[in-house]
Amino acid sequence: MYPAVFLLEGTAMLVVMEEKASSKQIEEVMQRIRALEYECHRIEGEKGIVIGATGNGRGWHRLQVLECLPGVERVVPISTPYKLASRETKGVTTDFLVNDIEIGNGHVVVMAGPCAVENEAQLMETARVVREAGGSILRGGAFKPRTSPYSFQGLGEEGLRLLAQAREAFGLSVITEVVSPQNVELVATYADILQIGARNAQNFSLLKEVGQIAKPVLLKRGMMTSIEEFLMSAEYVLSEGNSKVMLCERGIRTFETSTRNTLDISAIPVLKEKTHLPVIVDPSHAAGDWKYVPPLSMAAVAAGVDGLLIEVHPWPEKALSDGSQSLKPERFQKLMTDIRHLGQVLGRNA
Amino acid sequence: MYPAVFLLEGTAMLVVMEEKASSKQIEEVMQRIRALEYECHRIEGEKGIVIGATGNGRGWHRLQVLECLPGVERVVPISTPYKLASRETKGVTTDFLVNDIEIGNGHVVVMAGPCAVENEAQLMETARVVREAGGSILRGGAFKPRTSPYSFQGLGEEGLRLLAQAREAFGLSVITEVVSPQNVELVATYADILQIGARNAQNFSLLKEVGQIAKPVLLKRGMMTSIEEFLMSAEYVLSEGNSKVMLCERGIRTFETSTRNTLDISAIPVLKEKTHLPVIVDPSHAAGDWKYVPPLSMAAVAAGVDGLLIEVHPWPEKALSDGSQSLKPERFQKLMTDIRHLGQVLGRNA
Amino acid sequence: MYPAVFLLEGTAMLVVMEEKASSKQIEEVMQRIRALEYECHRIEGEKGIVIGATGNGRGWHRLQVLECLPGVERVVPISTPYKLASRETKGVTTDFLVNDIEIGNGHVVVMAGPCAVENEAQLMETARVVREAGGSILRGGAFKPRTSPYSFQGLGEEGLRLLAQAREAFGLSVITEVVSPQNVELVATYADILQIGARNAQNFSLLKEVGQIAKPVLLKRGMMTSIEEFLMSAEYVLSEGNSKVMLCERGIRTFETSTRNTLDISAIPVLKEKTHLPVIVDPSHAAGDWKYVPPLSMAAVAAGVDGLLIEVHPWPEKALSDGSQSLKPERFQKLMTDIRHLGQVLGRNA
Amino acid sequence: MYPAVFLLEGTAMLVVMEEKASSKQIEEVMQRIRALEYECHRIEGEKGIVIGATGNGRGWHRLQVLECLPGVERVVPISTPYKLASRETKGVTTDFLVNDIEIGNGHVVVMAGPCAVENEAQLMETARVVREAGGSILRGGAFKPRTSPYSFQGLGEEGLRLLAQAREAFGLSVITEVVSPQNVELVATYADILQIGARNAQNFSLLKEVGQIAKPVLLKRGMMTSIEEFLMSAEYVLSEGNSKVMLCERGIRTFETSTRNTLDISAIPVLKEKTHLPVIVDPSHAAGDWKYVPPLSMAAVAAGVDGLLIEVHPWPEKALSDGSQSLKPERFQKLMTDIRHLGQVLGRNA
Repeated sequence: MYPAVFLLEGTAMLVVMEEKASSKQIEEVMQRIRALEYECHRIEGEKGIVIGATGNGRGWHRLQVLECLPGVERVVPISTPYKLASRETKGVTTDFLVNDIEIGNGHVVVMAGPCAVENEAQLMETARVVREAGGSILRGGAFKPRTSPYSFQGLGEEGLRLLAQAREAFGLSVITEVVSPQNVELVATYADILQIGARNAQNFSLLKEVGQIAKPVLLKRGMMTSIEEFLMSAEYVLSEGNSKVMLCERGIRTFETSTRNTLDISAIPVLKEKTHLPVIVDPSHAAGDWKYVPPLSMAAVAAGVDGLLIEVHPWPEKALSDGSQSLKPERFQKLMTDIRHLGQVLGRNA
Repeated sequence: MYPAVFLLEGTAMLVVMEEKASSKQIEEVMQRIRALEYECHRIEGEKGIVIGATGNGRGWHRLQVLECLPGVERVVPISTPYKLASRETKGVTTDFLVNDIEIGNGHVVVMAGPCAVENEAQLMETARVVREAGGSILRGGAFKPRTSPYSFQGLGEEGLRLLAQAREAFGLSVITEVVSPQNVELVATYADILQIGARNAQNFSLLKEVGQIAKPVLLKRGMMTSIEEFLMSAEYVLSEGNSKVMLCERGIRTFETSTRNTLDISAIPVLKEKTHLPVIVDPSHAAGDWKYVPPLSMAAVAAGVDGLLIEVHPWPEKALSDGSQSLKPERFQKLMTDIRHLGQVLGRNA
Repeated sequence: MYPAVFLLEGTAMLVVMEEKASSKQIEEVMQRIRALEYECHRIEGEKGIVIGATGNGRGWHRLQVLECLPGVERVVPISTPYKLASRETKGVTTDFLVNDIEIGNGHVVVMAGPCAVENEAQLMETARVVREAGGSILRGGAFKPRTSPYSFQGLGEEGLRLLAQAREAFGLSVITEVVSPQNVELVATYADILQIGARNAQNFSLLKEVGQIAKPVLLKRGMMTSIEEFLMSAEYVLSEGNSKVMLCERGIRTFETSTRNTLDISAIPVLKEKTHLPVIVDPSHAAGDWKYVPPLSMAAVAAGVDGLLIEVHPWPEKALSDGSQSLKPERFQKLMTDIRHLGQVLGRNA
Repeated sequence: MYPAVFLLEGTAMLVVMEEKASSKQIEEVMQRIRALEYECHRIEGEKGIVIGATGNGRGWHRLQVLECLPGVERVVPISTPYKLASRETKGVTTDFLVNDIEIGNGHVVVMAGPCAVENEAQLMETARVVREAGGSILRGGAFKPRTSPYSFQGLGEEGLRLLAQAREAFGLSVITEVVSPQNVELVATYADILQIGARNAQNFSLLKEVGQIAKPVLLKRGMMTSIEEFLMSAEYVLSEGNSKVMLCERGIRTFETSTRNTLDISAIPVLKEKTHLPVIVDPSHAAGDWKYVPPLSMAAVAAGVDGLLIEVHPWPEKALSDGSQSLKPERFQKLMTDIRHLGQVLGRNA
């Protein structure tokens, strides 16, 4: 009657017993652990008993409810719950090609363009700027997830067609966002990389869907997603068979309001330690203000990022979406020069 | 070439000019405001000029990019961006029937049941407990959005069938979650109320879809969704034509880790002030620990909530999902008695 | 050469070894644990070794640096670091008298008054209102910790004298804040209860100082203080010999801005579980808006709080500090009636 | 009767009236604004009236309580509340000398040493390492603010003497923390720079005290201090007459737990925009793990920081405090080389 239950191997839990727990209560906990086909390890301390449970991960989540048993103080998990995304599992760092562009492997890829595709003139002009400044991937939203139903929602398929047209004209690859499982196939027809936005970071239906296509996926961290949850979201895509996943830090929500979000720069070295997947930073959405984009870009490169996602707009004051965080062409060109310079010093190919 | 752009009426912005802004810069800002068909209001202060812009909301988002213009210090919105959800717009409090159960209008509705539908025995036993304790709506997840792809994902349509069976057997109404736009129609066939989970609070494709059905929707607040964003998400459902929306506070993510989330109890009076929609609290997911569910339930009722969503499980230590936050039957019965008692004192029908 | 190092008994740590840790590395860790006079407990799992360390707490903090050793993945503490504040240590709930007012033991004490003592007329009028409505303790700040050096900083000793005068006139006890170790003695001369404000929640010099006086202390939780840190701050006061400590939840800082802070209502049952000390709630500073004070007060009482700290001002629109969160007299009287009513239903003496 | 009230010039407020506000209510608000000696500016929009109030700052805080008046929707401040710390007020960037070391003016100063001074051998060895690697300022805590009263609290004056001894021996300047107003004079006798720790970021008694000495102050941002509050704390020191203030970002508290705190890297460009004071970053306390210190240090330099505060310990596994975040000597030497290299590329003197 149950659907297939996926399994996780080699996980462990610690069951901390109350100081006053009776031997009968301890025995009851150990029996239940064994009933779930886990091994028991009894540790005696001055303040009572801790019981370790290790096993192949089958029914791992059931161990947590031991917390309901009499005599149990708390249950503490001690293994990472993700597997395919873990650096421990796959020792080698992941790199791959998007058309002829190397992702990972010491390169710093720059993906740039407008927040939203607005019309042909805007997109072609931006593509020209990105190409001339040395960017290799054009970003631009055709389907926009907007907080308000009354905001501009994107051009839809017309936007995808314009992106494809810009790709032809300027030899750039294209990244664009997909917001609904029904549109994955359509977007994959036009785009070289599919982007999952921050608000969909835990939209598991959508993650499973993009796990089944053959194109790379850039997964944005949610505003409220912990590093561990972020890796679990990547695990959804990986476990469906798509191994080309980039992780994009784009700012988390904190109490601070002087920037739109707080760029979690530490996420770069933390992710580099925990996973083999390439790490990208989006300084534009993190800051919400173009003035902060150059220093944050430089910081991300110095911290070891594999790429940047930057908003550029030829006429930001006319933008239909997020204009105040877009760089103007000349500032973007200057930043590209600085990034290349910094990359050389650090031995990166930027 | 543009898709239909939705409009918001009667909004306003304040453009704060830098102290050293030139008259030419001020003139330029005012021209642009007028070009967007907004009225200009010039205010002179000791530290420079502030320009007010008011209008019918057309192109409202474009006003924000005035921040890019030379001489502009910042742009401040001063109207609420939601309209249908606003109490200002609709003076009367919203109430409606789910079958014969009154939502709003002074009632405290209790929706209870297991986190996930696991099997017939578990669901029937829980339904019996809920019915006998005086609950009127049975909750239970058939499609579960789980952080890990390796966790139990729900029984799917089999779970929906069991919910329908329990409804028949015990005369309860049924609430269950929908996680994907493709499944809205299916879930609506079986359920009396559709639940949108916290991780989908800004899944706008899904919100639009449930906005087009004839059944009530319970919309959970995201872990890091502000009150204003929460109301904007409700606006997505309302603007598609579905006016039966309940707002459910279920804990927000903060730095505190002694509870799973931090129940934002203030959201009750704040929402009551800002919107006419009924407000529900889910103490089980907020606390993540059954021990805290009774005091939080009592607090929510005392603060004026319209209903509670409570996890009950006949055998929590065997639960496949969130067992540690489920109340056992006898504790639930005791809580129902306390809630009724409290409701009477406060002049509510619980 | 070292200063006296205080000790904590019965603590424990778990050292999780990396999967690839060598036997030599494991041996090295165990030797160091033993060198610190802790007992070692070796647990073998499928993913490697976990070493438990239990002992009398001497040098407990040194165990954490085992994380620096090769082969160690992480170090996890598994005991509570506070002792005198712990319910586990002292089974009986703490209650005490402030003059003839019972704190704890089922009572709901109401401390009310203006944020800042401004002048004689204001304080006397407020004291009259508090007394007539049935409040028993008068609050009022003479030394005000203000974010800006340009804000009103309080009347100082003149304010203390006015508080003493109001006490005489109306038979109320008095609570007021102390902001500096040098002033503890002075404030204790006038006040019945000393308040430590949220910004000083981890001002350990001040906490030690109030730990040495004979008067009760109301310790406010910091905006950024976790429950565990809050209890550690209480431990500073208790460990200096002062056992009359009240813990006051007053809202924590989160991303939500519709209230000044987010009242952590769950802190009431969590603290009740972890400590024997009385728990107070300050809904006025949490909400920052008088409109939300009545529902939050009722919620706190329903959740089991031992007392409330409420701002009342006879003329809030003239207040020099936090006027927008102060209740007017008639609203305070209404709230007192509602609290008493609710308390009776719940079997509390309000 | 009032103590001296400090004044702020050129501030402004906006009073947004409710749509349904009567002309009498509007008139009442305007009269009160004028009564506080502010000028009124009436703006008419489609959704009602907004009243601007500008003036010399006298009684500015009283304007906020207009929110209590009938017909008022809300009150919005529109000027920065800090003045001496503001870049707007003082156009030129602040730089100064600590002995012969330049702070600001394009230099990247490195202050390094142990979290706590533990004994002579440890401090002398660390000082040697710092000197040889090219660091110019030695850090080390003699008075330690610790969350637990049972943790090592520092050597006190003995620690200060050891710091002075290390200064003599190695020609380094010395920075150390002061935790209590009573100790400011003592600490200033030994130290070249006084540090205010994160937990004392809003300990205004202490801030006023260090504002009256002639030595530079490094002010750490609190874990949950906003940028604006941080600048207000600096304003306390500046307004007492001490103009040599450095602002130190050391990580803020967020929901993310994979690092001890979240380094707010954006605070560097934000502070550079808002204030003329030098900005320092402490990557060690932000990360809480030595592995992340090098990439975060590089990121901070790339983002334009004026200096770094880094924990170095010759034997971190024996440290009495925060050992797990301390760099070993060889790693610190390598990092110093990398920082110098990066600084040269960026045109900074590191």
